[in-house]
Amino acid sequence: MKSFIIIGHKAVTSPFSLNDLPGAAGRMDILCRCINSALFLSHDIRRDVFVYLILKGEPGPVKLIRFDGSKVRYLSPDERSAASLIKKALEKNAQEFWTESTAGVSIRKGNLDDLLAELGKEIIYLREDGEDIRAKRPEKLFNEPIFLLGDHMGLNCDEETIIEGYGQETISVGPLSLHADHCIILLHNEMDRIEKNP
Amino acid sequence: MKSFIIIGHKAVTSPFSLNDLPGAAGRMDILCRCINSALFLSHDIRRDVFVYLILKGEPGPVKLIRFDGSKVRYLSPDERSAASLIKKALEKNAQEFWTESTAGVSIRKGNLDDLLAELGKEIIYLREDGEDIRAKRPEKLFNEPIFLLGDHMGLNCDEETIIEGYGQETISVGPLSLHADHCIILLHNEMDRIEKNP
Repeated sequence: MKSFIIIGHKAVTSPFSLNDLPGAAGRMDILCRCINSALFLSHDIRRDVFVYLILKGEPGPVKLIRFDGSKVRYLSPDERSAASLIKKALEKNAQEFWTESTAGVSIRKGNLDDLLAELGKEIIYLREDGEDIRAKRPEKLFNEPIFLLGDHMGLNCDEETIIEGYGQETISVGPLSLHADHCIILLHNEMDRIEKNP
Repeated sequence: MKSFIIIGHKAVTSPFSLNDLPGAAGRMDILCRCINSALFLSHDIRRDVFVYLILKGEPGPVKLIRFDGSKVRYLSPDERSAASLIKKALEKNAQEFWTESTAGVSIRKGNLDDLLAELGKEIIYLREDGEDIRAKRPEKLFNEPIFLLGDHMGLNCDEETIIEGYGQETISVGPLSLHADHCIILLHNEMDRIEKNP
């Protein structure tokens, strides 16, 4: 399995209008594109992927939403489709444990600490000043990897402190600063190449 | 300059609702994501990029829409934003020549033949059975390149015949079949790497 964690610092934590994802929903469009990048092949879904969204916007508390590629249904590649499933999850009364809202999509209360403790593994942190992914030893890097990416605001100091206990590697995917969903495409491509030509 | 041509076989050629891009607008969501992939950096626009969309859906005739990265305005990364500019272009009375609809976005009547004749250069055709991009000599490949990509339907036989006169290379970007917008991310990354580390 491959896991991607994306932090949405402004992403709202209550149901929102599908007609204004960037504005009223707190840059929810970024998280929706990350769902697309992480889960979609041309005519298929990547079944070996988990996506974890951390929604930190109003009104709170912080919520976690998980997309399980092996079970997800009713998901199309467009932003609005992912947004619709996120919205349905936010309509649930979130508990301290995972509750499934639609097939393959679950929600719980919790923050970055809770999620990393639950996953219990070292993570790979994407940052533009990290070491180039093509310079890494992939057999180590890509063993059931957990990638952590920020939204348009990156990670703040508190978050960077939290991940220190979990940080295995800080990597980058190229010489320019890219959107999180674009980084996910590049990560998948490196892993696809290794899996097909080990 | 780098140019990307994407063919939307079902993409409608008259104004459409922004609330149903995949359905009523004929998979317009695919073209919108290609705009995003081709033009967006993390907090910037790629100024050295042209994107050409070929809209072949109802009611016709076929229309071409051009996004010029050096001039485009009012564009945000979300699908709906690109869709809104495409819609505004379709509200214009398209002629046989380019007419600007909003800053950096233009429209004309025309089809694939017309566009390739106008550009007057060999193209690079993305197809999953093409030669791996990482095996190519990039200094040849990436000299003011024009990339051609299909939508979810690929290219049909007529289109493949048309491009024979313009086809320089058929390449792929990895071992799996990917969405057009994901391919564009991978193409940009190869070019970014070469430009920053020639």
